[in-house]
Amino acid sequence: MKRTKTTDLYSPGMIGKEVDVMGWVRTRRGNKHVQFVALNDGSTIRSVQIVFDMTLFSDDDLRPVTTGSAIHVKGLLVESQGRGQSCEVQAQTLEVFGTADPATYPLQKKGHSLEFLREIAHLRPRTNTFGAVLRIRSALAFAIHKFFQERGFYYLNTPLITASDCEGAGAMFQVTTLDIANPPRDEEGRVDYSADFFGKPTALTVSGQLEGELGATALGAIYTFGPTFRAENSNTPRHLSEFWMIEPEVAFIDIADNMDLAEDFIKYCISYALERCHDDIEFLSQMYDQELEARLRSIVDSTFVRLTYTEGVKILQESGRKFEFPVSWGIDLQSEHERYLVEEHFKCPVILTDYPKDIKAFYMKLNDDGRTVRAMDVLFPKIGEIIGGSEREASYEKLQQRIKELNIPMKDMWWYLDTRRYGTVPHAGFGLGFERLVLFVTGMTNIRDVIPFPRTPNNAEF
Amino acid sequence: MKRTKTTDLYSPGMIGKEVDVMGWVRTRRGNKHVQFVALNDGSTIRSVQIVFDMTLFSDDDLRPVTTGSAIHVKGLLVESQGRGQSCEVQAQTLEVFGTADPATYPLQKKGHSLEFLREIAHLRPRTNTFGAVLRIRSALAFAIHKFFQERGFYYLNTPLITASDCEGAGAMFQVTTLDIANPPRDEEGRVDYSADFFGKPTALTVSGQLEGELGATALGAIYTFGPTFRAENSNTPRHLSEFWMIEPEVAFIDIADNMDLAEDFIKYCISYALERCHDDIEFLSQMYDQELEARLRSIVDSTFVRLTYTEGVKILQESGRKFEFPVSWGIDLQSEHERYLVEEHFKCPVILTDYPKDIKAFYMKLNDDGRTVRAMDVLFPKIGEIIGGSEREASYEKLQQRIKELNIPMKDMWWYLDTRRYGTVPHAGFGLGFERLVLFVTGMTNIRDVIPFPRTPNNAEF
Repeated sequence: MKRTKTTDLYSPGMIGKEVDVMGWVRTRRGNKHVQFVALNDGSTIRSVQIVFDMTLFSDDDLRPVTTGSAIHVKGLLVESQGRGQSCEVQAQTLEVFGTADPATYPLQKKGHSLEFLREIAHLRPRTNTFGAVLRIRSALAFAIHKFFQERGFYYLNTPLITASDCEGAGAMFQVTTLDIANPPRDEEGRVDYSADFFGKPTALTVSGQLEGELGATALGAIYTFGPTFRAENSNTPRHLSEFWMIEPEVAFIDIADNMDLAEDFIKYCISYALERCHDDIEFLSQMYDQELEARLRSIVDSTFVRLTYTEGVKILQESGRKFEFPVSWGIDLQSEHERYLVEEHFKCPVILTDYPKDIKAFYMKLNDDGRTVRAMDVLFPKIGEIIGGSEREASYEKLQQRIKELNIPMKDMWWYLDTRRYGTVPHAGFGLGFERLVLFVTGMTNIRDVIPFPRTPNNAEF
Repeated sequence: MKRTKTTDLYSPGMIGKEVDVMGWVRTRRGNKHVQFVALNDGSTIRSVQIVFDMTLFSDDDLRPVTTGSAIHVKGLLVESQGRGQSCEVQAQTLEVFGTADPATYPLQKKGHSLEFLREIAHLRPRTNTFGAVLRIRSALAFAIHKFFQERGFYYLNTPLITASDCEGAGAMFQVTTLDIANPPRDEEGRVDYSADFFGKPTALTVSGQLEGELGATALGAIYTFGPTFRAENSNTPRHLSEFWMIEPEVAFIDIADNMDLAEDFIKYCISYALERCHDDIEFLSQMYDQELEARLRSIVDSTFVRLTYTEGVKILQESGRKFEFPVSWGIDLQSEHERYLVEEHFKCPVILTDYPKDIKAFYMKLNDDGRTVRAMDVLFPKIGEIIGGSEREASYEKLQQRIKELNIPMKDMWWYLDTRRYGTVPHAGFGLGFERLVLFVTGMTNIRDVIPFPRTPNNAEF
């Protein structure tokens, strides 16, 4: 089918050409002489104005051209006389693909609440806001692949269904083909998982990192980018039960290299979005957050401050600020603490390192002090922690020791330990929750508004 | 940490430079005067030769330098005197990151069977074969994103956990947080899913297409690329329980455009791999399949033949060939039929269209004959069907009719039907099983060898 996308209408040399535009009607207005239709085809936030000369069309022709209907117009692209657009299409022929009954179509005019749009998540991509968010999300995803591929990282698909719960990063969803109403049982009445699909209990992954380390200690540098799951019953604007995560893992680097990588990476992604999604970011700035674009540019232009957890705690303690959660060495920092450091003290992104070992995962490299590990968290304005990573413990003995201390079943860890048993290397990596990044770049405030079909407790619609 | 990747050693102007190479030892050989180590860092299939002048190093120095050990060598990059490499590193200093005990390290020398390597999937990325396969897989993944992004498609993440089983594409894995040993029950003894995480039974998706259509009818053109699940108990070299799928979906195109898109797409991916992964493809050609590279080039250079299912069946019936499964109009074609058409009759890829409606999914557009639908399958040599797609039924009434005929619960389909109720448009799309593509491009014959950690019945290791 011959068609000109809206993104192509604005190319040089298009004025005066005959075009075939297809899209969904956003609004129609006018009088008995002339009708104006704003047509959007999803390729950009910009709608194109279609002008119907009513000496060429009848009222009946235009009756099905309602908000939400889909039409095909052949016409001449001309410079626009009106404000708000540089060109418009003078309609010659009209084909209606499908109308939309104004009595029932939920997306009449503008100004629906984000809460209402969440209930019609199957249609909300047709709104300006969600069109913009989803285009930015797509651009960010590509920026991530581009960044890593250009630097010689290999994309590694780690498994979604797993029989191990080694990281202990969160509650897990069980995956089964057993009949839950009547599961097979052994002689002692326990569920007999030998009859389950994988012959043992399995769950959805909470992180691909451990398998990522297997890749990095073979291919040198890998990144994952895939779905991750948490079965916590958290009904907050910051949590999803199903979200996408990016986890680069690199052999032969230490924590300083890892910080450089994280800083370069996130600046690259934000720059890419600023360049490629300017219209969408501008729209979201105007609608939701006047400071959005300036905030994004300030990140790209800043140098992230690097300091240790211990130094950070000292700053918080000496701040004179009354926090909801009191600060002392050893606590897991709360969002209020992170945001104080970023937004008030340093006024730029912060990378905190060398956290107490007791609040971090078993695989992080132990420092010589015996009580801190080579963790690093990247803290951002508005959202707090956006990246968490570490240099990994490369010593077989020390790693085994930590696994014992934390009572992680050693028998489930043999394959992970093999990376340290055979040709162990210094290596490091980090994790970024993709939706946190999309949240930051779009300026939206609820994480359910930056993923097409959010999964949260009691919600798996569409 | 300062380091020169192997891929960078071969850059112009490197000879004569001091380099820091880090990697894993593949082999060591030599005599008391000189020792040669083949070092691989995963960035390429090419190992770099390290030359140890044994007047500078002791036997003790080199004792831990075993196959599988990880080392750091500082040295001078010089032109190589030996065969098989253009340059080598004259070692000045040696640091051993980690040794590998020859008594237990499983990857001694070469020549392990693929079956054995499947049992040590955590280490097999360190072999030449799996290094090559995983690098090609990564390049193909990026080619897919690049192809669609360059053409204005938006990447859409469709949900993994779903409460609907509309497509009926296959058996599903149940996802639950209920205690299977003792699930809550209602008064009649049935499992009470209102207490499950999502308040109802949920499962892992078998396809993102229906949600993809929601995206396409808003953004114009989208593609998905994510994991998909099938709980069929199929222990074959062609089936995985967890695999990655690409599903583009485009508004305002018909089946002819869809065929063009599929053909351009798959040629683009193969060309990209031929260009970027030449060393790896050459290695796999030599090791497993002499005709691999020629076969890949022939696809890129060919024009896919397009014919209807009805014409295909006629050719098969008139072939005089005795098939295991007899051919008659209405049957679902078997691999033997598809391969006959591709490998023997046409000797090039084939796109078959307009299949009987009874063997295809409910959402495909009904032809005027009332008995065929606008389906299209792309058939390849060696593997048969690589892509399946269709123009979708755009008519609300016809789609509703098909849903009724097939007894699909209408109440689960309201959101999908809304795309036809409000501004319906002609649209089409297809699905590609990513591992099928990787299988074709690598020349491997078992699908478990083209995904890092395969999930199959009774196997969820690592």
